Amino acid sequence: MAWERKIMRTVRVRDEQAAGILARLISAISEVGGNIGEIRLLTETSKAVVRDITVYADDAGHMERVLEAMRTNPGTRLLAVQDEVLELHKKGKIAIRSRYPIDSLDILRRVYTPGVAEVCLKIAKDPSLARQYTVTSHFVAIITDGTAVLGLGDIGPLAGMPVMEGKAMLMETLVGLSGVPILLNTKDPDEIVTTVLHIAPTFAAIQLEDISAPRCFEIEAWIQAQLKKTVMHDDQHGTAVVTTVALIVVARQTGTDLAKAVIGQIGLGAAGNATARMLMKLTGNPVLGADLSEDALVRHEHGGGKRSTLKEIMAEANIVIATTGSPGLIKPEMVHKGQVILALSNPNPEISPEAAIAAGAVFAADGSSVNNVLGFPGILRGRQSMPMPHTSAMKCICLQPRPSPI
Amino acid sequence: MAWERKIMRTVRVRDEQAAGILARLISAISEVGGNIGEIRLLTETSKAVVRDITVYADDAGHMERVLEAMRTNPGTRLLAVQDEVLELHKKGKIAIRSRYPIDSLDILRRVYTPGVAEVCLKIAKDPSLARQYTVTSHFVAIITDGTAVLGLGDIGPLAGMPVMEGKAMLMETLVGLSGVPILLNTKDPDEIVTTVLHIAPTFAAIQLEDISAPRCFEIEAWIQAQLKKTVMHDDQHGTAVVTTVALIVVARQTGTDLAKAVIGQIGLGAAGNATARMLMKLTGNPVLGADLSEDALVRHEHGGGKRSTLKEIMAEANIVIATTGSPGLIKPEMVHKGQVILALSNPNPEISPEAAIAAGAVFAADGSSVNNVLGFPGILRGRQSMPMPHTSAMKCICLQPRPSPI
Repeated sequence: MAWERKIMRTVRVRDEQAAGILARLISAISEVGGNIGEIRLLTETSKAVVRDITVYADDAGHMERVLEAMRTNPGTRLLAVQDEVLELHKKGKIAIRSRYPIDSLDILRRVYTPGVAEVCLKIAKDPSLARQYTVTSHFVAIITDGTAVLGLGDIGPLAGMPVMEGKAMLMETLVGLSGVPILLNTKDPDEIVTTVLHIAPTFAAIQLEDISAPRCFEIEAWIQAQLKKTVMHDDQHGTAVVTTVALIVVARQTGTDLAKAVIGQIGLGAAGNATARMLMKLTGNPVLGADLSEDALVRHEHGGGKRSTLKEIMAEANIVIATTGSPGLIKPEMVHKGQVILALSNPNPEISPEAAIAAGAVFAADGSSVNNVLGFPGILRGRQSMPMPHTSAMKCICLQPRPSPI
Repeated sequence: MAWERKIMRTVRVRDEQAAGILARLISAISEVGGNIGEIRLLTETSKAVVRDITVYADDAGHMERVLEAMRTNPGTRLLAVQDEVLELHKKGKIAIRSRYPIDSLDILRRVYTPGVAEVCLKIAKDPSLARQYTVTSHFVAIITDGTAVLGLGDIGPLAGMPVMEGKAMLMETLVGLSGVPILLNTKDPDEIVTTVLHIAPTFAAIQLEDISAPRCFEIEAWIQAQLKKTVMHDDQHGTAVVTTVALIVVARQTGTDLAKAVIGQIGLGAAGNATARMLMKLTGNPVLGADLSEDALVRHEHGGGKRSTLKEIMAEANIVIATTGSPGLIKPEMVHKGQVILALSNPNPEISPEAAIAAGAVFAADGSSVNNVLGFPGILRGRQSMPMPHTSAMKCICLQPRPSPI
């Protein structure tokens, strides 16, 4: 069951005040295959404890079984089942806010007419001042046609909006940029490019999101060729940057010289293709590439990579990166001692980090830690303030919220 | 001098503690033609008073003369001259904000993966749910090509951004909607229409702003024909609604029956044309229309209006509305007893309300009170919650900020 498709509920339970009730409740949930998130203590008396427990299930039927298991746990009473996710999504998760309150005529005259006219005229005379005096300094378009949303596929732009809003929340929370979701009702690459170019003056940067491959390659390239501002397809370069950063850190920790290591990339879709290219740029060496699609292999060779196979990469590479979408593709017996394994398919990796380490890997991680959510906010902020690719990449490893600088 | 082009500065002055110093300072400013905004008292001792005085001037040279007059006022010392308008515009006046803090993994899982996927799938199944669970419920596009910004004309989209941001601030402050400025780098009506249609799923409503006439008519009509959501060119309908509301109120106060009144519209541009049409819809009677452009007169007749002249309207109409951009066009001797005169050209009206009243008008107003800023926020919110044109129109007469309902 894909983690992206799990549903969650917050269940308010009243447990009798007695040893072992919560433990039995947790066991009951886990016995029917439910997952447990946060447990919040609400009230405690000598007789009972009330808690909110967040539970995850695969679908509505499974959730019913989880709730039934909770309901029938001795000493437990279900008080309420809340769909907090839906509650939190009501009217959306973001909003446009004034940075100053308009609470007097004096302020109104500064931010609207007549004060605003002087700013308009300054920018008309020198358009580069727009970066100083307007939101074009921190507006980032988050543009999607809804063709490859999460692992859900082509669900359309409206259904993709909750994800775009989530990206915008993370942009604000992590780096203080204003992500503006833009939903396109066309899937035609030409029309997408033209539309983005027509609205481009609004934004400091363009982040393409969840646009399906291989259309995403040409769409990004065409827009980049015609715009003098940051244009990034997150699914490609967000992943590439985070993976590269992970390898730089791993190399430092394990004393590996990336320039001398043999690197193999299994899976050459949007993420794999971009990751291989970035690593080749970093090391100057070709990356071994494997994919079931001949087109993808040709694209990899065209980018300076070497055509290879799963078997060859597992046998020869010091560093293996997998972005195939095929859970369990890498068997423990394929791993050899001292290998670094990044099995990044979400939600289920090609091999679990534990299994890889047990099979002899010196380091292993999956897509829950090496994830592009660590990347896009810092990359965009980095490009804004310091255009050095490594610095940008390093910045994004920090998930600590910091105060919005704007 | 157009009020829209005035510049403003906040001047910090230290006046000696003596009778008449402030009065003399104010006189000195006004003698060189400067205007005075807010005066804030900062500190007061037995020796001196420190104040921030906001002054307005026509241009940089005029501002220098105003400051010189202040500098040379006996007993006054200039401590600082601040350009607070520019300060307030740094990095723009609006931002995208999360409606919830992301401060735990639990929240992250609700607003991002995996929680978000359930909401995506719900919307994929029933796209009408996007209105409930995404920002498409309150995102309003504020779209401009920068061809008719304030009274400044075609200054380009980037230079128009401070005005668009001001509109967004007012939308949030007055009715809690999220105005999203979108700058277009095309002036071609076809391309504008196509672009707006392509990004339309993002928004609950489309507000066209500061797009020059007569292009604005066809652009609005084409988009309206192809979109099943509110599409409004503010410069036309914002003004029309506010003017109509003003007349409804005036009619009630003066005991006039609008359905029996002869109404004349002088000036048939974007605002005048839309106002005449709205009044004809309201009363069922033709409005007399005057304009120097034959095209505008034909358009007026095509909309059910009656071709007339300035002279005829002034002689025959009970209610006169002027939107000509020609200050002083209406001479006092043209006014006849009991007429209602709305001379709406900004910043300088066709006749001042005082002069019109003195000449016998029963009611008179200018564009500083009958202004479309009273209109667009309430119209958009009204259309959202109650699709009755009159109710919408009435709502917008309230400029009291109210808490954001989203």
